[in-house]
Amino acid sequence: MEEIIEEIITDEKSSLKFFHYDKAFKFENGASIQELTIAYTASGHLNINRDNAILICHAFTGDADVLSWWSNFVGKGKAIDTNKYFVICSNVLGGCSGTTGPSSKKPNSNLCYGTDFPTFTIKDIVKVQKILIDALGIKKLYCVIGGSMGGMQALQWTASYPQMMEKAIIIASTMTHSPMQIAFNEIAREAITEDNEWYGGKYYGMSSPDKGLALARMLGHITYMSEEYMRKKFGRRRKKALKYFTPSFEVENYLHYNGEKFTSRFDANSFLYLTKAMDFFDAKDDIKKIKNKKNVSLNKVLIISFISDWLYPSTQSAEIVSAYQHANISTEFYEIESNYGHDAFLIKNPEQTKCIKKFLNN
Amino acid sequence: MEEIIEEIITDEKSSLKFFHYDKAFKFENGASIQELTIAYTASGHLNINRDNAILICHAFTGDADVLSWWSNFVGKGKAIDTNKYFVICSNVLGGCSGTTGPSSKKPNSNLCYGTDFPTFTIKDIVKVQKILIDALGIKKLYCVIGGSMGGMQALQWTASYPQMMEKAIIIASTMTHSPMQIAFNEIAREAITEDNEWYGGKYYGMSSPDKGLALARMLGHITYMSEEYMRKKFGRRRKKALKYFTPSFEVENYLHYNGEKFTSRFDANSFLYLTKAMDFFDAKDDIKKIKNKKNVSLNKVLIISFISDWLYPSTQSAEIVSAYQHANISTEFYEIESNYGHDAFLIKNPEQTKCIKKFLNN
Repeated sequence: MEEIIEEIITDEKSSLKFFHYDKAFKFENGASIQELTIAYTASGHLNINRDNAILICHAFTGDADVLSWWSNFVGKGKAIDTNKYFVICSNVLGGCSGTTGPSSKKPNSNLCYGTDFPTFTIKDIVKVQKILIDALGIKKLYCVIGGSMGGMQALQWTASYPQMMEKAIIIASTMTHSPMQIAFNEIAREAITEDNEWYGGKYYGMSSPDKGLALARMLGHITYMSEEYMRKKFGRRRKKALKYFTPSFEVENYLHYNGEKFTSRFDANSFLYLTKAMDFFDAKDDIKKIKNKKNVSLNKVLIISFISDWLYPSTQSAEIVSAYQHANISTEFYEIESNYGHDAFLIKNPEQTKCIKKFLNN
Repeated sequence: MEEIIEEIITDEKSSLKFFHYDKAFKFENGASIQELTIAYTASGHLNINRDNAILICHAFTGDADVLSWWSNFVGKGKAIDTNKYFVICSNVLGGCSGTTGPSSKKPNSNLCYGTDFPTFTIKDIVKVQKILIDALGIKKLYCVIGGSMGGMQALQWTASYPQMMEKAIIIASTMTHSPMQIAFNEIAREAITEDNEWYGGKYYGMSSPDKGLALARMLGHITYMSEEYMRKKFGRRRKKALKYFTPSFEVENYLHYNGEKFTSRFDANSFLYLTKAMDFFDAKDDIKKIKNKKNVSLNKVLIISFISDWLYPSTQSAEIVSAYQHANISTEFYEIESNYGHDAFLIKNPEQTKCIKKFLNN
């Protein structure tokens, strides 16, 4: 373990690293896999007391490279200051950016898991992160932070390991999906599973269900933007349509472009598994139980929502606040003005910067 | 023409009738078709002055059978009282419930139009309705009424034929689609056109793109309900899933059921053409021009929106009100409390009943 840490401390570029866990990993549903690879990045320096580590959990289609996708908030001198904190981010279990998932090869086999991969939960994702944190020799995280699906992981950390952390920041997230959120996910999944090239999830080495995956991403993309933002960005501006039933408006073109681009970096089965994990996520009861746990070091949670986020609206953040209050955990809650919609959590925003900085430095 | 009217007057059941227009119909884009069939129903009695006729325009996937789909508001003693008014409703041009559209046979051919059908606009739809009204010997409509896409038609009536009507009622509608509304439609269209059984729209006589059409309908269905309504109706109630990637929640099952059911009554090409007609619809300039027209008999417009409708939110109805005010047309505007979302316009509601009744009887 010490070796791993040495390596990290001297790494300035925060390149992707891999931790190979060679024991069996048991899933919440009872299934297990023989071994596990966890892809992660680590930036900054772990101090001598090992008490300045922050775990950042990425959103649905994110990855471990937090210095890229969250460069507005993480880095030297940023809100999450890598001069001060040792920042870890790992690709989620079941993802497709280095950590074991459906597109990984089965042990001692040339075949990928596909839909033979065990079904997993947000709790399983967090359990894998704990394996990494243990391996890094970190006994207590200073803070666990996440937005959107990353926020669900941060929520689950407070419920599963409140003795292993001091603070949590949960941004633009929810304790549990509403039927509308489930409905959007199901339509996206249906687009993938009805694609003739999905082959029941066994498409690896052949073609892949890119049309379905692109469609799923297009739908997701609508929910990431606010109506007002779309009006400002696209309005009703036209584009030259090739045929009548091809895009005629810029907004259509934008969605198609992003849908197609997405297929080159994301795996359709990971999309299916992760959306299911989100739909089944329900942290309400687990948060209630924190107050019965011993040696809880978790002492404060910051919750942030955005006024124009209609995917995870502020009402859902308010429910999180209420749940922690009932568990006797101190909270701070900010609803931030922004017209970007759900994706606001990724975008430069002085108010979000200020909230996070103040919360971490107090 | 007189024959048609006699037939209607004696018809109590309001069964579907067909008007065959044997002249060429010219579309807004310059194309034309040799002949046209218009499917319609007529209920009640046309009075001797022929001034009690009301045209009801159906919504996107509706049909001419207004006594069925709008039984909450149309019928003997209802808000739109067939004891008093002569109520006409025709299936839209390009639809698939009797009026000529992509699934109709080409003249003197066994082939269907498919995507050879000319592309058409809401203006074309309304022009076809005017042909029917002329054929029925009605010089002036007492009122034109419609909800959702029916509201767009009512809007277009006031712009195209303000000399041929006295009143209009526009419910849960818009003068023009926002980029978000276009985006949802495009994803629905993409689901259809990417279905391997769409065959570029030439699927008639073979199988049909039911999977894509069902997916499109599922997506539409989400936008017809409010989040609050979905929470009340479905919550997070589970259903027994057959496999992991099949519906696990009741809301998913509901959407699948409705998506599949829809394919037995609706044509995929009609879905494509009609959503395009809606996306291209922009009545703003046409409404402005009403004040320059001569012999305008249109004198009052009632606009109704629903507080929980996020597909056509009240802000879009307020824009309609403002446009008519600038055209010196008197308006009444009611935003009605309802938690049903967009579909509220179809559902029994004493406030909507009262608004319509009062407006028609004044």
